[in-house]
Amino acid sequence: MSQYFSKRYQDLEPYIPGEQPQDQSYVKLNTNESPFDPPKEVIPVIREAARNIRLYSDPESRELRQAIADYYGLEPENVLVTNGSDEGLNYAFMAFSDEDHPIVFPEITYGFYPVIAKLNHIPYETFSLRDDFTIDIRDYEGLGKNICLANPNAPTGIALSLEEIEQIVRTNPDNIIIVDEAYVDFGARSCVPLLYRYDNLLITQTFSKSRSLAGGRLGFVLGAKELIADMNTLRNATNPYNVNRMTAKAGIVTLRENTYFKNSCQTIQFNRRYTRRALEQLGFEVLPSSANFLFVRIDRISGEELYLRMKEKGVLIRHFSDPKITDWNRVTIGTKVQMDIFLQKVEEIFREQDEEKEKTK
Amino acid sequence: MSQYFSKRYQDLEPYIPGEQPQDQSYVKLNTNESPFDPPKEVIPVIREAARNIRLYSDPESRELRQAIADYYGLEPENVLVTNGSDEGLNYAFMAFSDEDHPIVFPEITYGFYPVIAKLNHIPYETFSLRDDFTIDIRDYEGLGKNICLANPNAPTGIALSLEEIEQIVRTNPDNIIIVDEAYVDFGARSCVPLLYRYDNLLITQTFSKSRSLAGGRLGFVLGAKELIADMNTLRNATNPYNVNRMTAKAGIVTLRENTYFKNSCQTIQFNRRYTRRALEQLGFEVLPSSANFLFVRIDRISGEELYLRMKEKGVLIRHFSDPKITDWNRVTIGTKVQMDIFLQKVEEIFREQDEEKEKTK
Repeated sequence: MSQYFSKRYQDLEPYIPGEQPQDQSYVKLNTNESPFDPPKEVIPVIREAARNIRLYSDPESRELRQAIADYYGLEPENVLVTNGSDEGLNYAFMAFSDEDHPIVFPEITYGFYPVIAKLNHIPYETFSLRDDFTIDIRDYEGLGKNICLANPNAPTGIALSLEEIEQIVRTNPDNIIIVDEAYVDFGARSCVPLLYRYDNLLITQTFSKSRSLAGGRLGFVLGAKELIADMNTLRNATNPYNVNRMTAKAGIVTLRENTYFKNSCQTIQFNRRYTRRALEQLGFEVLPSSANFLFVRIDRISGEELYLRMKEKGVLIRHFSDPKITDWNRVTIGTKVQMDIFLQKVEEIFREQDEEKEKTK
Repeated sequence: MSQYFSKRYQDLEPYIPGEQPQDQSYVKLNTNESPFDPPKEVIPVIREAARNIRLYSDPESRELRQAIADYYGLEPENVLVTNGSDEGLNYAFMAFSDEDHPIVFPEITYGFYPVIAKLNHIPYETFSLRDDFTIDIRDYEGLGKNICLANPNAPTGIALSLEEIEQIVRTNPDNIIIVDEAYVDFGARSCVPLLYRYDNLLITQTFSKSRSLAGGRLGFVLGAKELIADMNTLRNATNPYNVNRMTAKAGIVTLRENTYFKNSCQTIQFNRRYTRRALEQLGFEVLPSSANFLFVRIDRISGEELYLRMKEKGVLIRHFSDPKITDWNRVTIGTKVQMDIFLQKVEEIFREQDEEKEKTK
């Protein structure tokens, strides 16, 4: 830390993203990317958009916001587009929470929420999950505070129902409820329909997971026009040209190629079921996931050791240092071939463990 | 404004970027983009990078930071890459200025500085320019406050010498000096050599102007490793994957194709001289610019009227509402063909003015 660093941020611990090795030698099941390329039309539109790269992108992203609005039955004024959904989450926290309006989220959830709360000096509180890692919605009913919930939750993958989300939104009319739907396309129900009835709801989504554009950087926020306008004030004061030309066009294509999208999401759900069953047969505890990952543990090997041994064998999975979930690992759902390699390496590790035990006897 | 908007930001006036019409029907001399495409190698590398768009970009942007470091004779730890240089300016303001460390910049300069100061609740002060629009460096010598200077300044185009910048950096050792070199490649001297001697200097640059990548969104900050590390803490807490895959690769290509780059910058300087002389012959006052734009005025027509009449004729130039510069317009330097159209339309407007006067006699 330099002698010049503002005291405002000296205690800030940045979010640590999952490993991103820049060679392609790993089976990469650690950061919830899609194993599928986006629709083939994406590359030609990116190439075409790159021809005008000397010109600024549209600071209002009109065409892209219209496409997102059309897809969800909303108007462009209900849509804010961002450089990945983290940027949208940051604006959502900044705009509506402050020293007088704390924000509440589950104790175990996306690790970025406490980071952006601290960054913005927003007081926050957390509620524990139940022992089975589910959210107890009674904690959030009529709470009178801003709330941020990932649905499905991360890294558990467990989803709330639309009715449960509505109950929280309805009973906190004076507060903003942010629902982070980064993983919603893999089997949970989106709460977009609630936008027609509630003006205190914000939904963040991303093109990084189900739409295979993680490297393009694109996310969005949906909400009442006035809420979006407030967030847009912050965006214009921070980075008015936040979405690049190529990715804006790529995003539009993925919205248009809906059959491809639905098929990709269904394949992930199929592979998730397949992997879950295989892991349960090996003795793993596996949480019921509606996301493109599984959260898993087993008595015979610690979370960290399984992660390290898998990495040695060329498979990256995600282990978190938080002591409350240190027994667990998060495994992204990839192609069937990738999941078979993953399962085979797990069995290999178990065999090696057995042999090591045999030797030390 | 919604009832939920935080009182922290209710008085914030966002920066208003120049018009970005999404059709191509204007001669666009209003937002200082390059009139030249980037080197032809950019499109194939973007296409190639798009093949891995399903994967997150490198959150540490190692390859790109190495390329920038090599170009400037620095190390990667001296480089922070950002989604356009506005993002870098925001981190530079956030990291080192606060209620106890106000920031100072000229009264007439890039309009984004007061916006990000207000966004971050950083007190700021301004010094007037001299009557000839030059910066009086005596205002900034030994000031004991953080300072942000655009060099060349915008929208005047007037540059400080390396010695003048050094004088400011040297006499404010306990404060951070930010030098915004967005336009430096068009004829001013970069203060990168000062980085070898001073650890209180930050330099922001952009790929949007001289490197023809405005639509890709890429900027960077250079400085002492400890300062860059502090800013990186903020970046990781806001948007760890801030630069997209395609643009990172495109940036590297523009650094490699240095002859092409030098030729583009020289052509702009040639066209600038050409345009300046022609405007002076028409009676304009033209500030001595080291940037890819000219700041111009003439008694016979107000700044706003010239802007509006030019727009009617299909040429966009930039007029600012600030009363101190309301007589003036900023004209981006384009190709020679574009500048000839611009000059021809100016003469047309003057002829029409003469005819209108004739009629009303």
